[in-house]
Amino acid sequence: MPKPLHFSAFTMITPGADGAWRDPENTRDYLSLSYWQQQARVIEAAGFDAMFFADILGVFETRESGIELSVRDAHVFPLADPFVLVSALAAVTEKLGFVVTASTTYEPPFLLARRFSTLDHLTDGRIGWNIVTSYLDSAAANFGLREQVDHTERYVRADEYIDVVEKLWLRSWDDEALRKDATSGVYADPAHVHPIDHSGKYFSVRGPHSLEPSPQRKPVFFQATASATGLSFAARHAEAVYTQGGSITQLRDVIERLRTASEEAGRSAPKVFAGVNIAVGRTGSEARAKAERAHQFKSEESALAWNGIDIRQYPRDTLLSALQTFGTTRPLRSVDGRLDVTIQEYIDYSRTRRSPLSAVGTPDEVVDRLIELRDEAGLDGFSISADGRPGLYEDFAEYLTPVLRERGLLAETADQPTRLRDRIRADEIALQS
Amino acid sequence: MPKPLHFSAFTMITPGADGAWRDPENTRDYLSLSYWQQQARVIEAAGFDAMFFADILGVFETRESGIELSVRDAHVFPLADPFVLVSALAAVTEKLGFVVTASTTYEPPFLLARRFSTLDHLTDGRIGWNIVTSYLDSAAANFGLREQVDHTERYVRADEYIDVVEKLWLRSWDDEALRKDATSGVYADPAHVHPIDHSGKYFSVRGPHSLEPSPQRKPVFFQATASATGLSFAARHAEAVYTQGGSITQLRDVIERLRTASEEAGRSAPKVFAGVNIAVGRTGSEARAKAERAHQFKSEESALAWNGIDIRQYPRDTLLSALQTFGTTRPLRSVDGRLDVTIQEYIDYSRTRRSPLSAVGTPDEVVDRLIELRDEAGLDGFSISADGRPGLYEDFAEYLTPVLRERGLLAETADQPTRLRDRIRADEIALQS
Repeated sequence: MPKPLHFSAFTMITPGADGAWRDPENTRDYLSLSYWQQQARVIEAAGFDAMFFADILGVFETRESGIELSVRDAHVFPLADPFVLVSALAAVTEKLGFVVTASTTYEPPFLLARRFSTLDHLTDGRIGWNIVTSYLDSAAANFGLREQVDHTERYVRADEYIDVVEKLWLRSWDDEALRKDATSGVYADPAHVHPIDHSGKYFSVRGPHSLEPSPQRKPVFFQATASATGLSFAARHAEAVYTQGGSITQLRDVIERLRTASEEAGRSAPKVFAGVNIAVGRTGSEARAKAERAHQFKSEESALAWNGIDIRQYPRDTLLSALQTFGTTRPLRSVDGRLDVTIQEYIDYSRTRRSPLSAVGTPDEVVDRLIELRDEAGLDGFSISADGRPGLYEDFAEYLTPVLRERGLLAETADQPTRLRDRIRADEIALQS
Repeated sequence: MPKPLHFSAFTMITPGADGAWRDPENTRDYLSLSYWQQQARVIEAAGFDAMFFADILGVFETRESGIELSVRDAHVFPLADPFVLVSALAAVTEKLGFVVTASTTYEPPFLLARRFSTLDHLTDGRIGWNIVTSYLDSAAANFGLREQVDHTERYVRADEYIDVVEKLWLRSWDDEALRKDATSGVYADPAHVHPIDHSGKYFSVRGPHSLEPSPQRKPVFFQATASATGLSFAARHAEAVYTQGGSITQLRDVIERLRTASEEAGRSAPKVFAGVNIAVGRTGSEARAKAERAHQFKSEESALAWNGIDIRQYPRDTLLSALQTFGTTRPLRSVDGRLDVTIQEYIDYSRTRRSPLSAVGTPDEVVDRLIELRDEAGLDGFSISADGRPGLYEDFAEYLTPVLRERGLLAETADQPTRLRDRIRADEIALQS
């Protein structure tokens, strides 16, 4: 059997990616339970491993007009809390995983540990945690800080945070603690439930953990960063890495660095999911029409606002240098790995969710392209967003899932393990056994 | 039409009240979504306004044996997070409200405000917040504090906390902010979405609030305390007060003080729900058998452990004085308002969830008794716990709901408003219109 492909559905609880709420075909009702339950059912039927809920705790601002563009264009704003949505989705699915973004900078570790344990129990082990350290000044200002904690310190703090929550998840309740012995009246054996007595530089947490061990004991650790500090953190802790943006060459480089760093840390490398823009149709031209339609409702200014620049304030010919001076330059390099991009190329790239990878065509063409991308970059799977592409998951389930299954690249849902960790590492487990 | 009765279902996400998990008739599967969904359906069918999820963030300890009794007897431990359960219950009910306990001492206000707004949207306005300031040293130790913040300071901090979250809920988005104008591309009008720029003694939060206004804008504020500081806080902020324990005389006193304090604060008095022990059957003897059966699986030592005393360490005849010396004395006074209780009376009282009020008998007898209690104490409704009384909500729906509806004391679910605030204040609204 060929190496299976993995898929994760990337989303945020927003009205739609940037201008997508303007699309007349958009049926996204982002504050309705039934909308999300229907999405979860489709995504499960399409054979995805998980829904991945990204999140930020601030608003994207520009130097020139503050939060104006974000508010006007619904650019990652408003944005709801993914933690409290998951149980309703778990109730209408059987095997789909749910990855929730939460910050080591702003959530108290004791509460976060209990929240994830509760969800891991309620979902029968289908929960993952996208670990972020939060990077927006506008988020810091919501938590009593004048500006964000320094990048390096955020990761030092995050290391201690992980230490605390892992103590709660893994070391507070021994395997033999739970007795549930109605006759003797012992629910749990006090000799096997321990305080963690953590006392460190940033946190002091006594414990014990509030909950008995959950199916996975801890959520599957996801991480999404490309900085050197971030990669080193991922190598130490992550089980899966989500990466958005970057050419094949850049992806190979990231994966290689992750592999080396993981080896040094004595761990097996995290699985890598990369963002890809998919459009599929019965014919190539139908697919291309869908691809071109995508993101057409996103304004140029909101597409670029995440760089911190309000492009309305700059003549077109000075924009690239403004972005290089005031914006983040990393994404400029991401367009095919080149630095000499034109502003139009950069706008196009920003509009399509900032991934230069795409797979557009008939079902067979898309699957071929996915295999090619996977093999060239050394990926494990793909992160696919339907924000700005209404109907994409429905298309996936209708056109791609049958082909993927026929070719042995995707297991039937009934044959998938329930626990997210087992599912994501299923090929390794198969190799071991 | 007579003044309607209100009912709230009191629970915690635990294996069962103290020893209740030992009861062979207990079907409580406290970490299963389907168990809670079934409970929510029964509670809605019984005509209750809300499910009330109590919570603590530590473990009850005794001076003599620490957490041993809590761990062994599953005494309010383990205990899961109610926030992440609610959406699954909202998905299978239409009108039932959900009150989640959250602490002003440990949850960051910006995150909490977004969490409740998300839930208020997802539930169509059925969410309430039981505001607690958290009082356990064992909780403080989980958040980096050596002991709890001083009682008075906790409430000063809580006042500022309420100020912050109310600014986010009520003043950050104007009523006219939301435009959703696809043609012009204006989702929200930037002129009507404001940072809150809060900068106080305890909190500094810039905003804006992450979410557009939810159906209720803010959760219904519940509070549960009997201390003078707590009552004064409730009079300033609460819309409903939950009180457990206390004789009729004590309840009348609490309600009178609340009324006076509310008047002074220029607010209408919060609705008061009191805990009552219910047992109902086709015949009086069937009901009495159920009442006697309740809590029989709770050990004496765990029933009293919440006082901070391990009674195994004291000869029976010194126990009362040990409780008076080392334990909290308030509950001693609660048994009928007397101080001269025997230790057996106190144990019995502690075993039955510490409420001296009960209504036991045939359906008509129970309803008569509830009206009597309501009128004597000046209550608005009752808080009813089925923990330790398996099948109580089913009994309620079968025996009491039809009688209550026949007598005009309970509206049909279809006639109830959806929003929790409208529902709890329905009689006022009816009076006004």
